[in-house]
Amino acid sequence: MGWAIALHGGAGNIPRSLPLERGKPREAAIRHCLQIGVDALKAHQSPLDVVELVVRELENHPNFNAGRGSVLTSHGTVEMEACIMDGNTKRCGAVSGLTTVKNAISLARLVMEKTPHIYLAFDGAEAFAREQGVEMLDPTHFITPENIERLKQAKEANRVQLDYTQPIKNVGDEIPVSEGDGQIGTVGCVAVDGHGNLATATSTGGFVNKMVGRIGDTPIVGAGTYANKFCAVSATGKGEAIIRGTIARDVAALMEYKGLSLKDAAKYVVEGAPSGTTGLIAVSAKGEVTMPLNTTGMYRACATEDGYTEVAIWAGETCD
Amino acid sequence: MGWAIALHGGAGNIPRSLPLERGKPREAAIRHCLQIGVDALKAHQSPLDVVELVVRELENHPNFNAGRGSVLTSHGTVEMEACIMDGNTKRCGAVSGLTTVKNAISLARLVMEKTPHIYLAFDGAEAFAREQGVEMLDPTHFITPENIERLKQAKEANRVQLDYTQPIKNVGDEIPVSEGDGQIGTVGCVAVDGHGNLATATSTGGFVNKMVGRIGDTPIVGAGTYANKFCAVSATGKGEAIIRGTIARDVAALMEYKGLSLKDAAKYVVEGAPSGTTGLIAVSAKGEVTMPLNTTGMYRACATEDGYTEVAIWAGETCD
Repeated sequence: MGWAIALHGGAGNIPRSLPLERGKPREAAIRHCLQIGVDALKAHQSPLDVVELVVRELENHPNFNAGRGSVLTSHGTVEMEACIMDGNTKRCGAVSGLTTVKNAISLARLVMEKTPHIYLAFDGAEAFAREQGVEMLDPTHFITPENIERLKQAKEANRVQLDYTQPIKNVGDEIPVSEGDGQIGTVGCVAVDGHGNLATATSTGGFVNKMVGRIGDTPIVGAGTYANKFCAVSATGKGEAIIRGTIARDVAALMEYKGLSLKDAAKYVVEGAPSGTTGLIAVSAKGEVTMPLNTTGMYRACATEDGYTEVAIWAGETCD
Repeated sequence: MGWAIALHGGAGNIPRSLPLERGKPREAAIRHCLQIGVDALKAHQSPLDVVELVVRELENHPNFNAGRGSVLTSHGTVEMEACIMDGNTKRCGAVSGLTTVKNAISLARLVMEKTPHIYLAFDGAEAFAREQGVEMLDPTHFITPENIERLKQAKEANRVQLDYTQPIKNVGDEIPVSEGDGQIGTVGCVAVDGHGNLATATSTGGFVNKMVGRIGDTPIVGAGTYANKFCAVSATGKGEAIIRGTIARDVAALMEYKGLSLKDAAKYVVEGAPSGTTGLIAVSAKGEVTMPLNTTGMYRACATEDGYTEVAIWAGETCD
């Protein structure tokens, strides 16, 4: 038993040809956020506080697809969503359709703590944000030039685009990566303290060129985000596949109902999901950590109390 | 192996003192809808078509909390939501925040069949409905005098009200039922044909006096609604408890990962949920059916190919 933490910055088709100047800032951001999380756990902050803190940092980073940097809907707007969950109590909060809230994850926590509900969306969620006095910014704050270009490319390709997928003229016919364009992703963090208290948080802007009103896996308890007494999980990838697979709950259910270890449960779930759709990070009450993926890459990092640290981008390969 | 079908009109605290003139029309509606479903299965309609057909009928009935008859938000508006799922393919569709769509369940099916997404909500879902040309009505169509009164009572009691809960001045201090007021509920249907094809559908207006923007368990795949190759499940009750418990997925997960029978899996899940929060209906690929609840009542009915039929309202007691 000891503390453990893992975080991700999205899974998807990250090309091996990714220019260094595009990948390095994100790798640096992940290392930075990991350190913030580790420091907070060492300072005995609760796992719930830690995952919120880390996800806020990732939301504020313009190169991830959450908060500032969220990808754009087909109307050129942002619609952010997030979910947070505490393992022991299964208390949870979720939000969708945010357009002006700086940190969606913190609003999700307020839904959990200040309402009789779990999940608020769109105008009602924005009204709740105003009522709570959270930081709100002009919608243009969230829209980066890179995402305007990304939407243009996606519209030209006339198809919905997965986080890291490059514009595709015909399905299956991939175009070489333009400099870093697809390289953003959903963010998430899971943490456990030395007493087995678990928490998870996930935040996203969704799909490039998604329909207005589209809800993905991130805010769905049991799909993109889930924690109970066994483990805490945050998933990322193709949202629709993650919803169908109830990915995050299934990791916990395999531990609970089939007696699998964290690693085996997560591996079983990710290998069972359609190829190229799913990555996840998970920690167990015992302080174990795992970060499996069936995409070409997932920005990810983890650390445990016994001194193990890992930072990685592509499948089967860690950064130096 | 044979066909089987079950449907519900909501679970909750249905008082034993419920006046006959209030309970009987709902019991009659449930019998009527069961017959529609049985006839459709006998005519070899697909389970997906059958559950949509039955839920549409229930949505059109003003005494259930879905479609016409949906309960009101704190602003006096309706915000309807629904979800439909096919077991074999795990294809699914969901909608939330509908204000003018006559049959939410059919829009959920269109999201499944006509978009790359699973889940559309609020303005985006309404825009999609207009684009698809589904029947839309003035919001006042959905608002019944009973629900205006119910909201007034809930506001006076200054608390969020569960489907069947009567206004409560102090928590735990129940007021005697006024004539039939709380007697409406979420609706759902599950069906299986003789080849083991499974489907589920759930539709609701949510909570009386819910916050604008609140999303409940109904549209959440794995919470209120779920189907795979093992079973199809539709849950009803206190939405937040059903989300935390990933109730519908857990029934299927217990069959899949722990080898439980449908009946044992459903019993385990409902008994494990907080008392007074959860009812569900479920059918298995083998044509079994179960309808457990931990509330005082659930409007429910089922039939199987071998001639078994059951119609019931209160726990542990069937109607004549």
